[in-house]
Amino acid sequence: MDRMSQISQLAVTSPGKIVLIVMDGVGGLPHPETCKTELKTAKTPNLDKLAKGGICGMSEPLGAGLTPGSGPGHLGLFGYDPFAFVIGRGILEALGIDFPLEKGDIAARGNFCTIDEKGLITDRRAGRISTEVCTKLCEELSRINLQGVKALVSPVEGHRFLLVLRGTGLHPDLADSDPQQVGVAPKEVQALSREAEATAAIANIWLAKARSVLASHHPANMVVLRGFARLPQLPSMGELYKVNPVAIAAYPMYRGLARLVGMKVVDCGRSVEEQFDTLVKHYAEHDFLFLHIKKTDTAGEDGDFKRKVQAIEEVDAAMPQVMDLKPDVIVVTGDHSTPAVMKAHSWHPVPFLLHSPLCRPDEVTEFSERACSKGALGRFPAVDIIPLALAHAQKLTKYGA
Amino acid sequence: MDRMSQISQLAVTSPGKIVLIVMDGVGGLPHPETCKTELKTAKTPNLDKLAKGGICGMSEPLGAGLTPGSGPGHLGLFGYDPFAFVIGRGILEALGIDFPLEKGDIAARGNFCTIDEKGLITDRRAGRISTEVCTKLCEELSRINLQGVKALVSPVEGHRFLLVLRGTGLHPDLADSDPQQVGVAPKEVQALSREAEATAAIANIWLAKARSVLASHHPANMVVLRGFARLPQLPSMGELYKVNPVAIAAYPMYRGLARLVGMKVVDCGRSVEEQFDTLVKHYAEHDFLFLHIKKTDTAGEDGDFKRKVQAIEEVDAAMPQVMDLKPDVIVVTGDHSTPAVMKAHSWHPVPFLLHSPLCRPDEVTEFSERACSKGALGRFPAVDIIPLALAHAQKLTKYGA
Repeated sequence: MDRMSQISQLAVTSPGKIVLIVMDGVGGLPHPETCKTELKTAKTPNLDKLAKGGICGMSEPLGAGLTPGSGPGHLGLFGYDPFAFVIGRGILEALGIDFPLEKGDIAARGNFCTIDEKGLITDRRAGRISTEVCTKLCEELSRINLQGVKALVSPVEGHRFLLVLRGTGLHPDLADSDPQQVGVAPKEVQALSREAEATAAIANIWLAKARSVLASHHPANMVVLRGFARLPQLPSMGELYKVNPVAIAAYPMYRGLARLVGMKVVDCGRSVEEQFDTLVKHYAEHDFLFLHIKKTDTAGEDGDFKRKVQAIEEVDAAMPQVMDLKPDVIVVTGDHSTPAVMKAHSWHPVPFLLHSPLCRPDEVTEFSERACSKGALGRFPAVDIIPLALAHAQKLTKYGA
Repeated sequence: MDRMSQISQLAVTSPGKIVLIVMDGVGGLPHPETCKTELKTAKTPNLDKLAKGGICGMSEPLGAGLTPGSGPGHLGLFGYDPFAFVIGRGILEALGIDFPLEKGDIAARGNFCTIDEKGLITDRRAGRISTEVCTKLCEELSRINLQGVKALVSPVEGHRFLLVLRGTGLHPDLADSDPQQVGVAPKEVQALSREAEATAAIANIWLAKARSVLASHHPANMVVLRGFARLPQLPSMGELYKVNPVAIAAYPMYRGLARLVGMKVVDCGRSVEEQFDTLVKHYAEHDFLFLHIKKTDTAGEDGDFKRKVQAIEEVDAAMPQVMDLKPDVIVVTGDHSTPAVMKAHSWHPVPFLLHSPLCRPDEVTEFSERACSKGALGRFPAVDIIPLALAHAQKLTKYGA
């Protein structure tokens, strides 16, 4: 039996409440001048207080050296093995624009591109058309009719769009039409298994029709597709862990990921303050509250060390609202590291703290990479976060007599 | 190949001696007033001395957040994956009363209960009859004859008893007859696989006869059965690790568990002192000596912080007897934590020390949760204890040339 099933079999309903605060990409690297990370630079009296009374460690989303995207990063936090449950690129693209996917939908990421008179790709991004142009072209593509299958086209950003095929018997086992290089023609969509042959044929009919529709729209006179995927069937957190979870996330992708694991997703503002207010408002109805902060990651991706520090401080300032609720478990961590000096997600382990009246406090007195790496939890896999949180909220029974 | 087979293939006989001292449930949580755990509160000069010269860490019986019962807790300590080797409730019940199980026996836990004139259960514990009454009724039930199968009935405590079916071709794949609620009739025993159909029929005949026997014994006028199980076939520690193990345990369940893994189980008194004396007495004949102390767990389960501290101190005071023998390896740990403040087994990792002339000492200078969590072994799975002990006693050869 796998780990998730073991945990699931031991899960029981209890009144214990768990608050999971995720600062996206919170882990960092030292600033070249100060030799302090973003977290070490930030003034975080409240997080330090929680660290002092709690148990700390370094969470690893995928194991040594591996850098997660947002999908696997969050699946791990929710207790799903990111290697066993795979979210395809097309699906992530759909989640990222809050597209209302239905069971059986096949989603693919599309790019507008430019082809020459021989049909060879000359620009993979169609001269980087604006989102406005993209939106207009998507409207035109939406008019394409296919027999028995709906082809839904939604703009994403710039030259990027989303194609969703909706119908019965569709299969996502399809190779990309995007050759990922210029000077060659877009490929036909190939079925990678027999079950996907009909779907490949449909995709190719759509592509041929799209070519006609776009013929007069140079430089966006063709499209390429990649990352065909179907909504993965994930057991819900409610089924698995007997919790009643809610997600407080401002960004569509994280709202979508939360929905994928069966969380209720509530409206919340974009600011840290509004998000924490939303948590307080919904506290009574739920026993698992997930709050996702995007700012830390965005600042990290932008290489803006200072803005990342400020985002962390903003979260720290809001923490007393959560602490005053006295949940049985407060977890603060990230889904991965996004060091500002790297301007990208990274493989570095993520600082983690768990505060609970039933935890066995270690000697860590501040919430930083260096301090947490000396915590009693050591370096541990992110999928352990859920069983740890459930245990401290008394939501797991004893195994064996 | 699984881990156990890898280790087994490398095991060799050596004169090295291993002493494994298990303080049941030794791990604790801070006392709300002193903020010190039971172990931190106890004066343990001898254990501290061993920690100082040894290598420490925190052992995890089942991994993050999972709480083990006594069965899985001990299997892990003996090097058996507690998820791969499962001891059913009926078997544990039998071990707990030192019942001499034979290969092929099917054991189930029984409860005397009360049924009304319609056959519906009105009290699942038969008004909590005394052990004396239970013993008398078990004698009556023992007279039930079944064709070709012996039905052995032994009292446990109060309304609880043990049923053992002995014969050829019996199979434990049976559902409980205990509906675990009142207002309904006891269930027929259902076979969960074809191989168990004959056994289910036998169990149901026995239940019908038991009902006649008990008809006049209101409130104990019926029984329900659960946790049908067969003695698991475990490879012995002798076969696996080329050791000659002995168990010094006062409580039946631990004696039974030790027997399950092929240990010789010797008589010992109930006091810590007598147990240590027994160890010294048998030291020459064995190269693996397991000493089990129950007091720490009992005090923890009772929520008696002070008594748990005393039990730890008693063990510490006896340690010089073991240290004077200069075994190649002394391991001191627990099978799980039983914090007095929780009055129950818990998921918290268990302090661990290994002392050996061949160990690489770390900086830990006392035997406590906080100190051990800074030990060089970090947080590690309990099934690693056996290979660590074998290695330090030079009982494992090199893998590969």
